Amino acid sequence: MSKADIGLIGLGVMGANLALNIAEKGFRVAVHNRTAARIGAFLGEAGALGENIIGCQTAEALVEAIERPRPIILMVQAGEAVDAQIEALKPLLDPEDIIIDAGNANFRDTQRRMRALDGHGPAFVGMGVSGGEEGARHGPSIMVGGPRAAYERIQPVLNAIAARYEGEACQAWLGPEGAGHFVKTIHNGIEYADMQMIAEIYGFLRDRHGLPAQEIAAIFARWNEGRLNSYLIEITAAVLSAEDPHGGQPLVDVIVDRAGQKGTGRWSAIEAQTLGIPATAIEAAVAARGLSSMKGEREAAEKLFPRENARQVGPVTPELLHTLEQALLAGKIVAYAQGFAVMAAASREYGWSLPLDTVARIWRAGCIIRSQFLGEIAQAFEAAPEVDNLLATPAFASLMREANGHLRQAVALGIGDGIGMPALGAALAHFDILRRGRGTANLIQAQRDYFGAHGFDRTDGLDIHHGDWRQV
Amino acid sequence: MSKADIGLIGLGVMGANLALNIAEKGFRVAVHNRTAARIGAFLGEAGALGENIIGCQTAEALVEAIERPRPIILMVQAGEAVDAQIEALKPLLDPEDIIIDAGNANFRDTQRRMRALDGHGPAFVGMGVSGGEEGARHGPSIMVGGPRAAYERIQPVLNAIAARYEGEACQAWLGPEGAGHFVKTIHNGIEYADMQMIAEIYGFLRDRHGLPAQEIAAIFARWNEGRLNSYLIEITAAVLSAEDPHGGQPLVDVIVDRAGQKGTGRWSAIEAQTLGIPATAIEAAVAARGLSSMKGEREAAEKLFPRENARQVGPVTPELLHTLEQALLAGKIVAYAQGFAVMAAASREYGWSLPLDTVARIWRAGCIIRSQFLGEIAQAFEAAPEVDNLLATPAFASLMREANGHLRQAVALGIGDGIGMPALGAALAHFDILRRGRGTANLIQAQRDYFGAHGFDRTDGLDIHHGDWRQV
Repeated sequence: MSKADIGLIGLGVMGANLALNIAEKGFRVAVHNRTAARIGAFLGEAGALGENIIGCQTAEALVEAIERPRPIILMVQAGEAVDAQIEALKPLLDPEDIIIDAGNANFRDTQRRMRALDGHGPAFVGMGVSGGEEGARHGPSIMVGGPRAAYERIQPVLNAIAARYEGEACQAWLGPEGAGHFVKTIHNGIEYADMQMIAEIYGFLRDRHGLPAQEIAAIFARWNEGRLNSYLIEITAAVLSAEDPHGGQPLVDVIVDRAGQKGTGRWSAIEAQTLGIPATAIEAAVAARGLSSMKGEREAAEKLFPRENARQVGPVTPELLHTLEQALLAGKIVAYAQGFAVMAAASREYGWSLPLDTVARIWRAGCIIRSQFLGEIAQAFEAAPEVDNLLATPAFASLMREANGHLRQAVALGIGDGIGMPALGAALAHFDILRRGRGTANLIQAQRDYFGAHGFDRTDGLDIHHGDWRQV
Repeated sequence: MSKADIGLIGLGVMGANLALNIAEKGFRVAVHNRTAARIGAFLGEAGALGENIIGCQTAEALVEAIERPRPIILMVQAGEAVDAQIEALKPLLDPEDIIIDAGNANFRDTQRRMRALDGHGPAFVGMGVSGGEEGARHGPSIMVGGPRAAYERIQPVLNAIAARYEGEACQAWLGPEGAGHFVKTIHNGIEYADMQMIAEIYGFLRDRHGLPAQEIAAIFARWNEGRLNSYLIEITAAVLSAEDPHGGQPLVDVIVDRAGQKGTGRWSAIEAQTLGIPATAIEAAVAARGLSSMKGEREAAEKLFPRENARQVGPVTPELLHTLEQALLAGKIVAYAQGFAVMAAASREYGWSLPLDTVARIWRAGCIIRSQFLGEIAQAFEAAPEVDNLLATPAFASLMREANGHLRQAVALGIGDGIGMPALGAALAHFDILRRGRGTANLIQAQRDYFGAHGFDRTDGLDIHHGDWRQV
C-alpha cells in the first residue's frame, strides 16, 4: 500500500465522519484510536471507502504510514487528551510535520500549545470544525489558525472536504496563533444566541398563545422561505413537527427543558468580557442555558411567583407573525454584530488581521449557523472593510431601521405577559444604548469621582477632572 | 521608639488613608513607599497622627521596624507590583510573618500567590477593602481570605479600623484561599449593577420626561428616605444637585458620558460565566460601561437610527415615581440575588463555606453598596441558611411579588420610547425565566440532538435519549 496523505487520531463521531469524508474525496488517510477495538469497527463501517483508509494500532504505526511532511489531525476530547496526544506524538515527529487540533479547544490552550512546540517539534495548527456529525461527513466549515505554511500543506485536503457554497469551499486560514479556535468559539457563541432567540419566539407562541408544536413548526417552515432562511430555522421546523413514536404527541413536548453546554458558548462570553466588548445577547443565551439546568429552582420559583397574567391572548394574527419574524431578524442582526465586534477586537488585541468577510463567507455553508444571511454579512464587510460593527454597515443599518420597531413590539408584548425573552431583550437594549449619543455614564463618572476620586472629562474640554462634591 | 504593630507599603490615596486610620485607632504603623519622597510628604500630612507612624525609607527598614510576627499590608497597584513586592519582602521575612494584599487583586492571582508562598515563606492573606478614600480613612468594609491563624493575628487592627454598623465591625474572615478577594470582586460586580440601574432610571427621567438634573436629584433624595435608602442613592442625589462652578449649570451635564472601569466588574462577570451562574444584570452593567466608552460609535449610530419617538411624554406623576422606585428596588433585588448566587456557587466549587449572611453583614457599612437593604439580606440568609438564592427567601419573595409588576411596567415604558434599560431589563428577564417551571430548553435540546446527537432526557423518564429526526 502507498503511504497516506494525512493522519487522524480519534475515531469518535466527529473523527470517524471526518475520516470517511477525507477518504471519499480520494485522499489516503491513516487512522488511529486510543481504544484499539474501535479501529477495526470503524474499518468495518467504512465499506468501500476502506480502500483509502489505513488502520493503525499504534501512534508509531500511524506516523510510519504517512507521507512526509506528515500532517496529523487530532479529533480527541478537548483538554488534557490533546496535551497527552501531543506529548505522545512529539518524539515521533520531525520539525516539518504538523499536528492539527480539530477539536473544540479553548484558543488560549491552542496559543499555549503552539508556543510550547514552536522551535521544539512539529508545527501546530488550531482548526475549528463546525457542522456536527453531518458536516464532518459531507462538508464542514473549517476555520484554520496557526503557521500559514502548515496550512498550505493541508489546504488541498481541507479544500476537498469542506462544505461548498456556490462552489466556494468553506475553509480558510484566518490568522496566526489561536485565531481559528477563537473564531470557532465566537461561532458557537453566536449559535447559542441564535438558538436562544428562536427558543424565545417558540416560548412566546407556546406560552402566550397556547399554540401546539405542530402549528409553531409550520410558522418556522414558512419563515425558512423568507429572510430568516437558515439551517437553524429549518431544523426548528423539523424538530417541532417530529412525533414521539411512544404516544404520538410532539416529541419536543416530552423532552426535558434542561439544556446542556460544552463550554464554547461560555468561553465566547468570557473572551468578550476580557476584551471589554459588549456581547450581551450571547451572554443572555449562555445564562439561559445555565438557568435551564436549574430545574428545581425554577419549579420552586414558579410556585412563589405565579405568572399573574397567565392567559392565552387569542389567535395569532398575520401582523403579529410578521412582527415576530422581523423581531427575530433584528435580534439576530444584533447578536451577529456583537459576535463580529468581539472578533474585530480580538484581531486588534492579538494582531491577527482577521478577515471578517472571509469568516462570514466560510460560515455560509457547513456550520450550524449557516445561512444566506451570512452571505449578506460577507458582502457588508467587503463593501465596508474599515467598519467592524455590522450595525453600522449600510445594508444592515437599513434592515435594522425597519426591524427594530418589531423587535421593540415583540419584547414589550412578552414583558407585558411575563414571557421572558432575555436574549431578544438584551439585543434591543444594546441597540437602544448604542444609538444614544449622549448616554448616562456621565452620572456614573460623577459617582465614581465622588466616592473614589476616579476623575472625569468635561464636555467643554476644560482641564478640570474632579468635582468639589462636598460643596454646601 | 517602640516597634510597630503592623506595616504598610504603598502610600497612594487608599494606602495613605488606611495608614492614618490605623494610626488614629492607636496602633503603631510602619510605612514605606517605592517613591521615597512620598514618605516624608505623607508624614507631613499626618499631623499629630504622625506619632504613631514610622516612616521607613527601605523595605528592610520597614521589616526591622515591626514587632514579630510581622504583618505587612500591601496597598500597591494590583498585578505585577504585588508580585514584585512579595519577591522583595520574601527574603526579609520569617515563616510566621504575614503579607496582606489589600489591593483589588483578581482572586486567581491571590490563589497563585498563596500557593507559591505556602511552606516557602510568610503567610499570605488576600484582603478586599471597599469604601474608597473616605472608607479607608474612617472605616472601610474588609473582606479577608487566607489562613485563619494569620487573620487572627491582624484581627485587632482590622476590628479597630473597620466601619461599624450598629456597633458591629464590618470586617470578617470569610474563608481560606482567595475567598476575600473573590467576595470583593462580586461586591464590585453588584456595585456596577446598582450604579447602572440608577443611571437607567436617571436616563428615563432625563430623556423620556426631560427633567433637569436638579429635579432628578430631589427624587433620589426622597427615595433615600425610603426602602432604597443607601449610600449610592444618597450620592446620586448629591452629584445630581452639584453645580458646575464654571457656568452654574448642573455639573453632571458637563461630564463626558464615558465611564471608566478597573477590571473587577469584568472579573465578576467572568467568574459567573466560569461557574455557569447567570449574572446577566451584572453583565449588562459591565457591557454598558464598555458601550459608554465607545462614544464615536454611539454618535454614529444615533445618526443612523434616530429615536423615532423622541419626545417628552409630559409630567412625571406620583404613580410613575412610585413605579420607578419599586422598579429600582426589584432590579436591585435580582442583581444582588445573582451576585450572592455566584458566591454560593464559588463556595461549593472551591470548598470555602462562605458565610453569605456574614458577607451581607459586613457590607452594611463602609463599602460602596452599603445600605440597610444589606441588613435585610443578612437576616434573610440567617433565617434560611440552606437557601442560596435570595429570591427564594420569604422576605425577598414577598418584596418581589409586589415590585416585579412595577419593574415590568418601567421596562416596558422605556422600551416603548426607545430608552435603553439593559440592566433593569436583564433583571426582569431573569425573573421571568426563573419562574417558568417549564422552560423552552426542550427545543434547544431537540436541536442539539438533531445536529450533534447530543441527546436529551424525556419527561416520562423513558430510557430513550435520541430522536429519529429524519423520519418521513
